[in-house]
Amino acid sequence: MTSGVNRPRVVVVGAGFGGLSAVRGLRRAPVDTLVVDRHNYHLFTPLLYQVASALLDPSEIARPARALLRRIGNADLRVARVEGVDLEARRLHTSAAPVEYDYLVLAAGSVDNFFGIEGVEERGFSLKDLGGALALRNRVLRQFERAMWTDDANQRRRLLSFAIVGGGPTGVEFAGALSELIALVLRKDFPNLDIGAVRIALVEAGDGLLAAFAPRLRRAAQRALERKGVEVRVRTSVTRADETGLLLADGTHVEAGTVIWTAGVYGADLAGAVVARPASARRVAVGPTLQLAEHPEVFVIGDLAEVQQDGAPLPMLIPVAMQEGEHVARSIAAMTAGQALQPFRYHDPGIMATIGRNSGVAQVGPFKLSGFIGWCAWLGLHLIKIIGFRNRLIVLINWGWEYFRYDRPVRLIAAPRGAPDTAPPDGL
Amino acid sequence: MTSGVNRPRVVVVGAGFGGLSAVRGLRRAPVDTLVVDRHNYHLFTPLLYQVASALLDPSEIARPARALLRRIGNADLRVARVEGVDLEARRLHTSAAPVEYDYLVLAAGSVDNFFGIEGVEERGFSLKDLGGALALRNRVLRQFERAMWTDDANQRRRLLSFAIVGGGPTGVEFAGALSELIALVLRKDFPNLDIGAVRIALVEAGDGLLAAFAPRLRRAAQRALERKGVEVRVRTSVTRADETGLLLADGTHVEAGTVIWTAGVYGADLAGAVVARPASARRVAVGPTLQLAEHPEVFVIGDLAEVQQDGAPLPMLIPVAMQEGEHVARSIAAMTAGQALQPFRYHDPGIMATIGRNSGVAQVGPFKLSGFIGWCAWLGLHLIKIIGFRNRLIVLINWGWEYFRYDRPVRLIAAPRGAPDTAPPDGL
Repeated sequence: MTSGVNRPRVVVVGAGFGGLSAVRGLRRAPVDTLVVDRHNYHLFTPLLYQVASALLDPSEIARPARALLRRIGNADLRVARVEGVDLEARRLHTSAAPVEYDYLVLAAGSVDNFFGIEGVEERGFSLKDLGGALALRNRVLRQFERAMWTDDANQRRRLLSFAIVGGGPTGVEFAGALSELIALVLRKDFPNLDIGAVRIALVEAGDGLLAAFAPRLRRAAQRALERKGVEVRVRTSVTRADETGLLLADGTHVEAGTVIWTAGVYGADLAGAVVARPASARRVAVGPTLQLAEHPEVFVIGDLAEVQQDGAPLPMLIPVAMQEGEHVARSIAAMTAGQALQPFRYHDPGIMATIGRNSGVAQVGPFKLSGFIGWCAWLGLHLIKIIGFRNRLIVLINWGWEYFRYDRPVRLIAAPRGAPDTAPPDGL
Repeated sequence: MTSGVNRPRVVVVGAGFGGLSAVRGLRRAPVDTLVVDRHNYHLFTPLLYQVASALLDPSEIARPARALLRRIGNADLRVARVEGVDLEARRLHTSAAPVEYDYLVLAAGSVDNFFGIEGVEERGFSLKDLGGALALRNRVLRQFERAMWTDDANQRRRLLSFAIVGGGPTGVEFAGALSELIALVLRKDFPNLDIGAVRIALVEAGDGLLAAFAPRLRRAAQRALERKGVEVRVRTSVTRADETGLLLADGTHVEAGTVIWTAGVYGADLAGAVVARPASARRVAVGPTLQLAEHPEVFVIGDLAEVQQDGAPLPMLIPVAMQEGEHVARSIAAMTAGQALQPFRYHDPGIMATIGRNSGVAQVGPFKLSGFIGWCAWLGLHLIKIIGFRNRLIVLINWGWEYFRYDRPVRLIAAPRGAPDTAPPDGL
């Protein structure tokens, strides 16, 4: 594939928040944009934990990328895995065919980092993509079905024990949603099952949950989870995962039939393709213009980029990716017009997390909110800041509706034919 | 697992229309019922083709079996694959643990029958269960994405050609839905793709489509499909399927990158477990009381049962299964009360099929309807006859709503992590 005769071609790797922001920002620029992603959808990752806890359907948090691109006249999509970048030839290597570019925006995001801890990669369920969330949903429901078959109290306890590793927003939100799925829904679905055998543990190596938040909010989040019956273990890390659960660095053992890993991510594999030595968390270090030093036509944004600001790297957050995407769009438009580039500066819109329904923590400028107020702030902030374009408002209203109804959770153990999860090794 | 001390245990194999009708019919009988199914959901199979054509989400046609059983005080569920029946010991062998019964209702349904035709089982996509429908949805969307990568017109034509084998309701309805998905949705999603290269062929061995319908309706259905651009080939059967498409008995070749098999089903594998010699279509022949001749405590219903009425076996239809399930519930209640059993007699509520939106054929008693009127009748009949219990009304309204909106189709290529369909051999 070659680019058009007149207009430069901007290739954007990744249809996430960063990539799509760049594409939208370029919609009136004199360029053609081409998004390359291994999936045909954009994923609203903040609600992935709700798919994993059987509260939302995949299509409620994933939108076909082509539907989002329809209104953007100069954008198109190709579905393929990006396997490498030839910076000199200005060409991407993909699982389908090579793609040439004039400008390249790398927004490939991040993947789970298991830190090489024994047993975690093989046994841990992940909340990093839709496939992982669906596999986890099937697992949770299947463990309850398995528990119905056993008269052995020890075996039942093992089946119904879940250990979540990582006390960041993903771990906290999933722990809250899982405890509510069990308390509000599965308790009624399994009236003959001893729900008292269920155990949800949350393990965090740091000194508390939600490290990015103010101390008062962190304590509020922990109390909210504990009220829901989640056992919170802080200041201890995982040494090993096996079929009995987790072995912790302090020597204790956390029984768990299912381990969920949310304790770390690093840059996507693509990082190694563009720099000889990735920065911390395997990210690609870029300066304030987000360009590769030797290749000003290549921009790196989002989780894949390490951008220093005020002496520290910017966090891996959606607003960072979106603002970087918008900035890169302006930069490319400036380059096509022969103008100088502006440095990027991140404006923090606030951070937030929900702990189940009606409880949340939010930190927006000087405001530090928790409980129901915090949860309302979470909703409002999603409305105002995360949702960037008009159509998305409707999407959020739909999500809100689904979220409130709660009487129609999905809870299907379903997979395409041929998926291993339809027939696990024990035949159940 | 053993049954309760006082009340006889009725084990129902299959949470389909037949099995659930039996369970509901027994809800006030002095028995405990236990449903055993390999899935944790009940599937509204008549709309499976809409999942495969990306119009509905799986959770819109599948309901958690436990949610349906919640209101039935004497019923419970176990998820497992049933692997055999020990008729003498009155015990089921399952993938999890043995299950003992006092009464057994076999409602395990049917599976695809590929008639041993070369290449069909390996290459054919199926519309018989949710996993098959999801795999087919992913396939259709992926073929369009693949077509975007090629400049070779022959390759593109192959990728965008679909051959449906079987002119029964499933084949006809899927052909109509697929052509509308392409004409109404994918045409807009793929503005740079030559949609004229798309080809949908429907192959039927009999002398026309929808053999169970009156000649006028059969012709109307064929015309409706042909107006949507479907190439209908009748009076010819499939000899072989390979990577180029189908070879037909008349020597012609139908090019197809994707083959969908809807041309035949036979009784589930379980048939061989209860009778030495299954009847036609591998069903279990039972008399008018639906009992096994040597084992009056065992009933067989639905697609798995061959029941003669007026000199011919009853067809494999949902109303047959539901009426048989209701009848068996009355029979078991009668047996527990020491009363005599009545013979079963099927009352035909009519048959119908849709050909895309706003077009259908329906045959109800003396009425033979086609076109928009036929489609309305399809909707009405679903409301009145198929939908058996109060809650279902709401469900159908939801389906209707989704069906009408049409601007929000699912069209995600998504699978749980680990599913082979997430990473097909060619890397796309």
